Amino acid sequence: MAKQKKSPRPKAEAPKGFRDYFGAEVTERAEMLQKIAGVYHRYGFDALESSAVETVEALGKYLPDVDRPNEGVFAWQEADDEKWLALRYDLTAPLARVYAEHRNDLPTPYRRYAMGPVWRNEKPGPGRFRQFYQCDADTVGAASVAADAEICSMLSDTLEEVGIPRGDYIIRVNNRKVLNGVLENVFKMPLEQIQAGVTEQNMQFWVQAKVVTNLTKDRQVHLDVLRTIDKFDKVGEEGVRELLTKGRLDASGAFIDGVGLNEEQAEPVIAFLTSKGTNSEETLENLRKAVGDSQIGAEGIAELEQIAALLEAQGYGSERIEIDPSVVRGLGYYTGPVFEAELTFEIFDEKGRKRQFGSVAGGGRYDDLVKRFTGQAVPATGVSIGVDRLLAALREKGRIKSHATGPVVVTVMDRDRMADYQAMVAELRNAGIRAEVYLGNPKNFGNQLKYADKRQSPVAVIEGGDEKANGVVQIKDLVLGAKIAENATLEEWKERPSQFEVPRSDLVAKVREILEGQKDA
Amino acid sequence: MAKQKKSPRPKAEAPKGFRDYFGAEVTERAEMLQKIAGVYHRYGFDALESSAVETVEALGKYLPDVDRPNEGVFAWQEADDEKWLALRYDLTAPLARVYAEHRNDLPTPYRRYAMGPVWRNEKPGPGRFRQFYQCDADTVGAASVAADAEICSMLSDTLEEVGIPRGDYIIRVNNRKVLNGVLENVFKMPLEQIQAGVTEQNMQFWVQAKVVTNLTKDRQVHLDVLRTIDKFDKVGEEGVRELLTKGRLDASGAFIDGVGLNEEQAEPVIAFLTSKGTNSEETLENLRKAVGDSQIGAEGIAELEQIAALLEAQGYGSERIEIDPSVVRGLGYYTGPVFEAELTFEIFDEKGRKRQFGSVAGGGRYDDLVKRFTGQAVPATGVSIGVDRLLAALREKGRIKSHATGPVVVTVMDRDRMADYQAMVAELRNAGIRAEVYLGNPKNFGNQLKYADKRQSPVAVIEGGDEKANGVVQIKDLVLGAKIAENATLEEWKERPSQFEVPRSDLVAKVREILEGQKDA
Repeated sequence: MAKQKKSPRPKAEAPKGFRDYFGAEVTERAEMLQKIAGVYHRYGFDALESSAVETVEALGKYLPDVDRPNEGVFAWQEADDEKWLALRYDLTAPLARVYAEHRNDLPTPYRRYAMGPVWRNEKPGPGRFRQFYQCDADTVGAASVAADAEICSMLSDTLEEVGIPRGDYIIRVNNRKVLNGVLENVFKMPLEQIQAGVTEQNMQFWVQAKVVTNLTKDRQVHLDVLRTIDKFDKVGEEGVRELLTKGRLDASGAFIDGVGLNEEQAEPVIAFLTSKGTNSEETLENLRKAVGDSQIGAEGIAELEQIAALLEAQGYGSERIEIDPSVVRGLGYYTGPVFEAELTFEIFDEKGRKRQFGSVAGGGRYDDLVKRFTGQAVPATGVSIGVDRLLAALREKGRIKSHATGPVVVTVMDRDRMADYQAMVAELRNAGIRAEVYLGNPKNFGNQLKYADKRQSPVAVIEGGDEKANGVVQIKDLVLGAKIAENATLEEWKERPSQFEVPRSDLVAKVREILEGQKDA
Repeated sequence: MAKQKKSPRPKAEAPKGFRDYFGAEVTERAEMLQKIAGVYHRYGFDALESSAVETVEALGKYLPDVDRPNEGVFAWQEADDEKWLALRYDLTAPLARVYAEHRNDLPTPYRRYAMGPVWRNEKPGPGRFRQFYQCDADTVGAASVAADAEICSMLSDTLEEVGIPRGDYIIRVNNRKVLNGVLENVFKMPLEQIQAGVTEQNMQFWVQAKVVTNLTKDRQVHLDVLRTIDKFDKVGEEGVRELLTKGRLDASGAFIDGVGLNEEQAEPVIAFLTSKGTNSEETLENLRKAVGDSQIGAEGIAELEQIAALLEAQGYGSERIEIDPSVVRGLGYYTGPVFEAELTFEIFDEKGRKRQFGSVAGGGRYDDLVKRFTGQAVPATGVSIGVDRLLAALREKGRIKSHATGPVVVTVMDRDRMADYQAMVAELRNAGIRAEVYLGNPKNFGNQLKYADKRQSPVAVIEGGDEKANGVVQIKDLVLGAKIAENATLEEWKERPSQFEVPRSDLVAKVREILEGQKDA
């Protein structure tokens, strides 16, 4: 340490893309997560906290989000055995490792929830951080779609529990198998054949510069079509038709290359995208047309029917959870049902335009993650809540009371009587009231008031020599007096009607009375 | 991802020295931390969650614990600007960075608490992990010893709040200045002169192989004496006298080099170590003799007197917080009061020997950390709770109820009626009862019972075809039936008196009745 005196002073700043969270930012998140954990617990899910650090080998080389395969992890090499370690980038890859490692001790199915930070070695940007919270619930080892249905109903209960009222959210369910069925219908051949590369003659369309490099061609079929489907909201039916076939001029005048399907091939995709009916039955009927004779498509539709029936039996109607073919989800690894929770109320964006709040959670079935370790396919399904987005939504809706929760500040008028002031705060705390003595230099009384202001203190307590002699204290309602407190002198300040002189023995009672009055106001 | 199929399977294991926490391990810790946060909040402390990652520059090169300067951090280099980043090794270094960075926006004094994992790149060992929780509270910007006294009373309240009863713990307070005073009395010169190396002629004793390499000689004076003082508990007065002077044969017959003081110089140290009296007054009186004419020693004693008076005024007597000269604390950076919370009840160690539980928290005043960044000395004091040790203590004392909190399991007798079973769990959950449907393959009923057993389920619900036809359900008290449940057939199992047949409409009421009966038992 002594050596450091000679080196230049270190910069006091968090690393690029990292930030600190203060006070209510921390406690509000903790409270929300606690409510979520309560719902998960009631559903039989057990807590899991895996280590933040994993071997790179266990994580796998790439992020699951294939749209950003070049984005990485924070990794370093061990000094002794030269193994590479890395910070986890999500909570799902560690779950697969934990389940594979402890599978003989864990119950099957294994329902677990996990909450905590994850790290991404990405280029930071505005509102885009390299450390953020995730909150996941997954069921490992259950092949039944009842497990998927359960995740959906749990997500619905969770949103209501944290404060999103029914009607302000919708959980949309789709099935990746239906999409695969649509693909089979597009190419008139089984998925395996598409994947085996038999459509080599169509591949020219998929192998384009924008296509990520670590994927084999078979995946690109899906990805390009899926990406185009994802644009349905923005470009509409005709736009998607153009993007699937010969390409399209976008609003800026730039030409976007098409995927290269012919008109007939594009038809099932369009049918799929416009399949949403007024109720589940109608939607499912439309989907049947979109998948044609595809076996896997029929399977997917049957699963969606079962999910709808299971949810119906538990009272979750389509006002809470609905079949919606427009849900695609970015992650390539989903293999069956996928779901997404969207908040449907409107907010104003930074430019003052109305828009819907959008997605706060998503998930689906992924059956291959544990197999990487054990060679055995283990069915799994789960959901991840975007903690920061959900918190932002709750703040937007005024569901989080962000009013002052600062402490009562007992000011120091006479520094030799610190013991008296400490005794006061001890009394207040013992009565359950948040309270503290001013611990800075007490010389300047104005500084003490400024401090109380900065702390958003609801009440200040003053006991000078006169008060001490008369056995009284001054109690100041700072919420009432907030407007004038900052610049007033002690004398002016004392005259305000928001200040009360009470016997020392009434300290706790009077403070409590003021706090309760503030709560009611 | 497709490429990974060709590479050998990754090993499913957490990295060396890291571990996973399951179920109650996670929730019990969370509950304890929540209680602690409640006390800290009541004392006016605000939550802070700084980023887990810091620049190595901001952390400083070494861990604060100078006994292990070669132990390091997990660090890596940024790709673009080649800056070194690292995982935080404690919560204090980040606090110094945060305070320096945000000092214009933060109140002064700034009281903050922080809870979360920290990481040490150390050799892992049994019970020694490279990721563990810390829970800190610090006051930055308050020079007054009232801030130190407050930390002590808060620590006392915290221990009682989480479940350590009064009498089972003691908080010991000392002052580094008193130790420095003792050193001045030993060398008969001001501390500055000792530190300036004027005692070069004594230095031969400090410069020994066992002395860590990144410390300048001035620090070694303190460290060697402090280390010896720390051995008082083990070797007693005569042992310390030998270690301070010419050395000592230890129990194994090995010779331990002495620090090299003469008999007269050793005397103040011995006086200091044996200064504890039956009350604070007596202890302070003894300490006055140990520090002799030392100015800094007198200052330290005056501070201890003030702390004792402040605590007394708040009702914290010496049965909770006492002056104890034997507290040294390992960290070299403390500059004033130091404190340590020890649990005084006895436990049995792994060899069946009685011993005291020991230390669960410690801290003190450190006035130099922020200065590294700003050049300006900022007084600070704080405490860190050993989260895992305190949890272990609470489990030891039976303060954490670890009884079964598994879910009610609704078994699946007829897989086509999954919707019926889901409706049952929905009813139970809506009544606030933790419940789930068995989601594995329902074919083998025995597996369902084994699953319920593994989950420590309190109750199982059964509705086969007959029950359905008769409008009833079977409800099994698994706690009562635990002994025989595992190997019994369904028929045997049904005959047990711990199983009840009730109308379907009484499902929730009966389950609740059984759960309440289990709670009372």
